[in-house]
This record gives sequence, structure tokens and C-alpha cells, in this order.
Amino acid sequence: MTTAPGSPVLHSHTVRLSYADTDPAGILYYAAWLPKMEALQSEFLFLQGMRQDALKERFGWWTVTRAVHCDYLAAAALFDVIRIELRLVAIGASSFRFGFEMHRAGDGALVARATITLVSVDPSQRPIRLPSLLRERLEAWSVGEGILMGAEA
Amino acid sequence: MTTAPGSPVLHSHTVRLSYADTDPAGILYYAAWLPKMEALQSEFLFLQGMRQDALKERFGWWTVTRAVHCDYLAAAALFDVIRIELRLVAIGASSFRFGFEMHRAGDGALVARATITLVSVDPSQRPIRLPSLLRERLEAWSVGEGILMGAEA
Amino acid sequence: MTTAPGSPVLHSHTVRLSYADTDPAGILYYAAWLPKMEALQSEFLFLQGMRQDALKERFGWWTVTRAVHCDYLAAAALFDVIRIELRLVAIGASSFRFGFEMHRAGDGALVARATITLVSVDPSQRPIRLPSLLRERLEAWSVGEGILMGAEA
Amino acid sequence: MTTAPGSPVLHSHTVRLSYADTDPAGILYYAAWLPKMEALQSEFLFLQGMRQDALKERFGWWTVTRAVHCDYLAAAALFDVIRIELRLVAIGASSFRFGFEMHRAGDGALVARATITLVSVDPSQRPIRLPSLLRERLEAWSVGEGILMGAEA
Repeated sequence: MTTAPGSPVLHSHTVRLSYADTDPAGILYYAAWLPKMEALQSEFLFLQGMRQDALKERFGWWTVTRAVHCDYLAAAALFDVIRIELRLVAIGASSFRFGFEMHRAGDGALVARATITLVSVDPSQRPIRLPSLLRERLEAWSVGEGILMGAEA
Repeated sequence: MTTAPGSPVLHSHTVRLSYADTDPAGILYYAAWLPKMEALQSEFLFLQGMRQDALKERFGWWTVTRAVHCDYLAAAALFDVIRIELRLVAIGASSFRFGFEMHRAGDGALVARATITLVSVDPSQRPIRLPSLLRERLEAWSVGEGILMGAEA
Repeated sequence: MTTAPGSPVLHSHTVRLSYADTDPAGILYYAAWLPKMEALQSEFLFLQGMRQDALKERFGWWTVTRAVHCDYLAAAALFDVIRIELRLVAIGASSFRFGFEMHRAGDGALVARATITLVSVDPSQRPIRLPSLLRERLEAWSVGEGILMGAEA
Repeated sequence: MTTAPGSPVLHSHTVRLSYADTDPAGILYYAAWLPKMEALQSEFLFLQGMRQDALKERFGWWTVTRAVHCDYLAAAALFDVIRIELRLVAIGASSFRFGFEMHRAGDGALVARATITLVSVDPSQRPIRLPSLLRERLEAWSVGEGILMGAEA
């Protein structure tokens, strides 16, 4: 994949960590970021007119999650306010990768960094080369072009 | 609804509470029972040949959740082993209710008690009288009849 | 308990339903409201200077969840935007009840209504009469008084 | 780290995927493996006498999650029965890594593979060299020695 480290923020959410997100050690439960990452990515694609659950019917292809990775860099605690940022960080032959950064609002500390890798597939879930329609959107997003008003909800 | 307080246990799961289930107070997070109740109820219906996601296509009706209630009776803690029991506790004109009891394995204490009320609906989600096929199954379950082998997985 | 049906909205969150919140039927997973209700209630209490995890040490008593009830009134779907409202709806001798309403932003439909009942307890989790400090705050909240700036985050 | 590809299975759980685990596409929600991985790992450590929430008080050090990675290899669907296996796959200077494999019971297909990397830390959460007590247990586990009866619950 071609990585794009300086890529622009495409969308962000600001959330306060609550009891559901934290465990008996009083710190973030490690799985808590994933639904928040998915909500940010899904809303971005929805606002861009690319809701994933409609791709198969509209275009004859769709995307599935191939991998997730998350690094926990600093302890996040109950009631911390966190800003989650979405970027497009890599484009490959049949896949692409979103990057996520979780910053604590209080001191700006980077508490976690994560990626989700998606693959374009045919209806029977076999990987296919990125469809040109999708590739064009990805290349625009990787440089911050083509972001519709409303992407920052 | 007709309640059936002495109804038999239809199915049960035994689970150990883990970090995902507990919060910074070191006790059960209040929402943690619901996915466990759903997993037990869904597996029971699946093993009975009534998987909910196929009802609409097979029979022209399906069921939706109308209400949930849960009473928290004793503190449950990290690593406690809990037995969740499923019963059918009420049958109405267009609805029925499953009951759940959560017992701590160590001392048998009843730590929580809950119900899920379901309604039979047509494909556009309007309530309908319980279809006769469903009513027969419910009446059998309320007295412990007609439980196929395998219901206790 | 004394119920207060016309009580004022104390706090609210607006959320968009995402894949984590919905199930194979394409509609809201029944347990998805509970973490959202908890996040709203916890943030309200935090903003009011009453964070629950500090009550025991500060005051010698704290509160635990005694019961939850939720009625599902209309189907909520993937990507729906929902406004969740918090009210205080009842005050008893040793317990109180928050009420929650979930309204769909698009058409204002009431898709769900729920309550959480809390009990004041001593450090060993035995119920105690509502401490006067807590009772005063509850009575103020039930009529919308004493809400600090920032309660509507 | 020293990787140990042929390391033995230390513990396993068999679970049936339910509505909570699946999304509107009818397939596994990508975050659903993480709580199941944590429950398996936490129970293994508990059964080995190393419950994580007691390490700090007993030994003056504890462990925190540093990273998680998951590869999604095949579609898993509602009601699939999955066997999750735990192995210790790497030991470093201050960290170690558990490996997880998710196999579908029906056909043995490997549907996902994941790792959790943990770091030993002092009470202020600074990484420290693996304490000798921990290192000895890890080395035993990496070759399948020292597994107490009961590890396979």
C-alpha cells in the first residue's frame, strides 16, 4: 500500500468516556475504541453518499473489514473527553486503510492510534481490484479533496 | 397475560463475568445481562427450529421485542460464575414473555431477575394475534413439553 | 414513589445509530439503548458535581442501580439520528428514578421510553433513607432548579 | 520478541454467535471478537492464579494492554459455533503476546486470528523488564508446561 502519513482529518467525533467504556482497573476497556471508530467511519461514509450496506445493490461490489490494529499509548480514564480523528492513510490494489487518532481533550495527549483495513469484494466476498469509482473517492479523500459540507457533523 | 410462575427451565447458560461485564466499581455493569439474555433466548429458539430471522419468510409473521425489565438483587463481581435460566412466564393475545433468573454458582444467590416481552407482528410490524403455530409452541413450552433434545446445549 | 410526569429535561445527547447498534434484522439491537442511557445519566451527575464513583469516599454512602425498564415503541434503523432526554421522574424513601425518552430527529417519533431506578446504600450496599444532601438535589432536579450551566453539554 | 509459532493451546472457549455479535450485513460485527478474547485470556490468568486486578497489590507490578491486532479471514455468520483458542506466541524484554485463533466448529475454517500484546509496568504504569516470577510462568506456558488442571474449563 501507499501510505499517506500527512493526510488530512476527514471527520471527527468528541466523546466522554463513561462506565460502559471503563473496567475495574478504572481505565479504558481495551475493546471500547472499536465501536467508536466504526461509528466515526460509518458516519463519514454515510455523509459522503457511500453507505456500506447499500454498495452491493447499487454497484455490484462492497467492502469488508480485513484487519484492525490498535496501539494503546496512554491511560484514558472514566469521564475523560476524547477527540477521535479519521484519516485515509493508505491505498492498495484491492484494499485501503483508515487511520484513527484518539486525543484527550484536556491535555491533547495521544492516548491511542488505530487502523482499519478494508477490502473491496464481489458479492461472493472474493477480493477485487478497487473499483474506479471507489479509487477516485479514496484518492480525493487522501488529499482532503471532495469532502462534502456536513462531513464534520 | 396469563402468568406461569412455576414454569420449567427451558434452557440455560453458565458464564463467568469478565472485565467486559464489570465497571470501575468492580461490580457488574448494569447493561451486561442483556446480551447474555438474548444469546440464551436466541439459541433456545434456534434449537427449537424457530430462528427469528427466518420467521418472516417462512410464515409471513415474525416477532419483535416490546419491552425489557431487569431487577438487580445482589452485587455480582468480576470472575463470578453465573447460571442464567430461561423460562416462558406469560402468554397474552398478541404477546408473550420470557423470564430470566441469574444465579451465582458459588452460593446459589439470585443476583438478578429479568423479563423480555415479545409481540407477534405482520411484515409491516403491526401487532397481530399470536399465530396458532406459535401459540401451540408457547403453550407447550410453558409446561415444559415439546423441548427437543439439544435444548440444553 | 412520587411520580413527576411533567418534569423538565435535565440533560440530552444526540446520537446517530451505527452498525454496533443494529442487528441482522436491520433494526436497533434491544440492548443498545442502555449504554447510551448510562452515558447520559453519568455525564449529568458528573456535571452536577455528583460523580458516582466518588460518593462513597466523600459522603459515606453511594447509589446502586436497582432496576431498569425499557419499552420499544417504534422501529429505529441504521443511521437514524436519535435525541435521548433525561428527566427525574420519581423520588421515594430510599430510591429515585430517572426517565429517558428516545426521539427520532427526522420526524420526532418517540421510539423508546425507559427508566433507571437507583437506591441509596451504605458502604456495605444496604439500602438507606435518601441522605438529605441527595434528597435536596433530587427535589431541585425534579422541578428543573439547580441545574448548573454546562448540564447541556 | 521471540515468537513461538508452534506453541500449545493454553485454554479455549466455544461460543455461538448471536444477534449481539452480528450486524445488518448478517455477518460478524468486527469488534465482537475482542470481549470474547479478553474473557478467554482473563479466565486463563485467573485459573493460573494470576488475576490481573490483584497483581499490583500482591507483587508491586501489573500488566497493561499495549496493542491488539485482528485479521478477519472468513465470514462468520449468525448462529455459527466458534472455538477460540489461546496461545502464548511471543516473549520480549518487557512485554509478551497472546495469540488467538477462531475456528468455525462446522467445517474447522479459521475465521479470524488475533494477538494481544501486554507490557509489565510499575504502579505508575512505566514499563519494566518482565519480573522473574512472570517470565518463568510465560516460559512454561510457551511450551505448555505448568498448566494447572482446570485451565480447560
